[in-house]
Amino acid sequence: YLYIRVMVNVPKSYLILFSTGAYTASQGINCIREDVASYIERRDGGVPADPDNIYLTTGASDGISSILKILVSGGGKSRTGVMIPIPQYPLYSALISELDAIQVNYYLDEENCWSLNVNELRRSLNEAKAYCNPKVLCIINPGNPTGQVQSRKCIEDVIHFAWEEKLFLLADEVYQDNVYSEGCQFHSFKKILYEMGPEYSNNVELASFHSTSKGYMGECGYRGGYMEVLNLHPDIKGQLVKLLSVRLCPPVSGQAAMDIVVNPPVPGEESYSQFIKEKESVLNNLAKKAKLAEDMFNKVPGVHCNPLQGALYAFPRIFMPSKAIEEAKAHKMAPDMFYCMKLLEETGICVVPGSGFGQREGTYHFRMTILPQIDKLKILLEKMKDFHIKFLEKYA
Amino acid sequence: YLYIRVMVNVPKSYLILFSTGAYTASQGINCIREDVASYIERRDGGVPADPDNIYLTTGASDGISSILKILVSGGGKSRTGVMIPIPQYPLYSALISELDAIQVNYYLDEENCWSLNVNELRRSLNEAKAYCNPKVLCIINPGNPTGQVQSRKCIEDVIHFAWEEKLFLLADEVYQDNVYSEGCQFHSFKKILYEMGPEYSNNVELASFHSTSKGYMGECGYRGGYMEVLNLHPDIKGQLVKLLSVRLCPPVSGQAAMDIVVNPPVPGEESYSQFIKEKESVLNNLAKKAKLAEDMFNKVPGVHCNPLQGALYAFPRIFMPSKAIEEAKAHKMAPDMFYCMKLLEETGICVVPGSGFGQREGTYHFRMTILPQIDKLKILLEKMKDFHIKFLEKYA
Repeated sequence: YLYIRVMVNVPKSYLILFSTGAYTASQGINCIREDVASYIERRDGGVPADPDNIYLTTGASDGISSILKILVSGGGKSRTGVMIPIPQYPLYSALISELDAIQVNYYLDEENCWSLNVNELRRSLNEAKAYCNPKVLCIINPGNPTGQVQSRKCIEDVIHFAWEEKLFLLADEVYQDNVYSEGCQFHSFKKILYEMGPEYSNNVELASFHSTSKGYMGECGYRGGYMEVLNLHPDIKGQLVKLLSVRLCPPVSGQAAMDIVVNPPVPGEESYSQFIKEKESVLNNLAKKAKLAEDMFNKVPGVHCNPLQGALYAFPRIFMPSKAIEEAKAHKMAPDMFYCMKLLEETGICVVPGSGFGQREGTYHFRMTILPQIDKLKILLEKMKDFHIKFLEKYA
Repeated sequence: YLYIRVMVNVPKSYLILFSTGAYTASQGINCIREDVASYIERRDGGVPADPDNIYLTTGASDGISSILKILVSGGGKSRTGVMIPIPQYPLYSALISELDAIQVNYYLDEENCWSLNVNELRRSLNEAKAYCNPKVLCIINPGNPTGQVQSRKCIEDVIHFAWEEKLFLLADEVYQDNVYSEGCQFHSFKKILYEMGPEYSNNVELASFHSTSKGYMGECGYRGGYMEVLNLHPDIKGQLVKLLSVRLCPPVSGQAAMDIVVNPPVPGEESYSQFIKEKESVLNNLAKKAKLAEDMFNKVPGVHCNPLQGALYAFPRIFMPSKAIEEAKAHKMAPDMFYCMKLLEETGICVVPGSGFGQREGTYHFRMTILPQIDKLKILLEKMKDFHIKFLEKYA
């Protein structure tokens, strides 16, 4: 897709405005930040976006890392607490550990399709106040590894909670184009924040993230991404640019890729129909595979899989016989790690144990992508079913 | 150059081996790490290089940042001290501050063409031992901003010192292709380490860095780079890969650019003569401009400029009248910042004050690149001369 766009459809202005071989401004190329701002405005039905609040990054990871670096401070009981969902994408736990901050867990509700409950946020925050200074609340929507898509109501509750508790919101929205379930829709935190009125939109500090790596593009090797910040104090923005400038600038080809993502072909352009065809084909296939994975996992005894409302993963729960848990412990392995290693050895299929993402004590999961072609995914899911049934028999 | 190489001369294997749009291994693409190792072996006259010790990075800055993250630890008096040259490239002071490590200054000898003296290293180390745990010694060769090229003898002395004091050596060698002065030659720390015998080559811990951003390529927007590590404990290497994997992988186009740099066209290949012509033209021009800048600065009263033996900068010393220093202080500016601002206002020429790089108390400098075309550089230097003479008159 990128190549077609670059070759066939690139606006002439690009060729004038930058060279991929030269450094750019540390915050990213101006005209690309303007394009990102326009994209956000279109996406959010006209809610204004300021290019000055946009920072181009080396993938979303780099943006999340930079903003956390700016937010984390203190020692002892005043060390910064960073609230993250459990299960989480391990970038968060790794950065929190790198920055010597405190990881504050809030649990997603597996019984309610991995939804986020504000009561759980409150429990988590209140407990954390005893041993750290919780300042940051991270949200992943659509979820990774859990694939839930947050409702408008849920997002409003979270924003109200952040406003009440003066928490800095990090909204990881890299899967915003990957929504499959009927009745589910992506709502950006930025948009809802504005719609809740000026008391919120002038006060709640927010950083949201997007990337070229997911969606229907999947151009992850370019390391393109952006973050948009809101209500960040001008001095802090100065510090942020200083921090980013230490590493000079994001890769220019990644910046260009981000620009292409926020500037898809429009009706009347030569590549428009081809683009729509490819985009819809990719997203429809992912939606089919999301349903297929959910259905097939739920047919296996001892496996439960929530609907894959969005993102690119299934995160089924596996009920492990106590004999298997004992054997795992004898091997000094987490039970789901033991399960995944056995799966790998016996079928060649590689999935990631839930213990790498975090999960409620005594529950076991694994994460699997839905990226393989549909025929291959079917075979793969059949093999996993057979493996699981044999596994249950062996450790019954 | 990159484009020509990619279009005309790219080995077919590349097209098979990787896509620029997909994630790669966190350490970088295997076959590129093999190419880098071969390049190092050729450069160092056959000294072996192991692809397993090569890490592809997002520019050299990213490699330096990652290795420092691994090396820094402790609190209070056991905080890690990192020895850096003064003047230094500000990446180092910024990373040390980011990591909450201790900056330990050693001063380059301006009277001896910014050379490094081991007695000064020893003074610096011994003083630092009173308040921190100095573990890392950073060397920039050829120097930035100072442009000196270290002699073989100097490198041997530094390696012996690091061996004696069990210091981890960081060799920032991104200007290795930029050596201009007659009698000067680039020697890699890795090569000298091996030539000093197994007592050194089996014990001294070393990380050295290279980049696509300098040399005759100047392809800095790709954010391509590599580091080679030596004598790093296998467990630490495991931790390093874990750390790198948090950010997934370096940009693939930057990895590809690095591959092209370490695989220049060879005799017999279609683009060889064009490549040699362009490379020599770029390097010969830089050498001319290095000499021109030195000569012209030294003709200005109250300016002294050491020979630009290598790298891309002049770093002349300016002798400022005491009245100018007083006026700077009245404006709450470093005197050389005041000078640079006046230069900018009166001529439109933008150079960086020495206080941004560090300098001996009471001395003043600025850094200027020698990148402008030779005709423009001449005009620029003439303007700076006129400005300086007027400045001296004004504050006499």
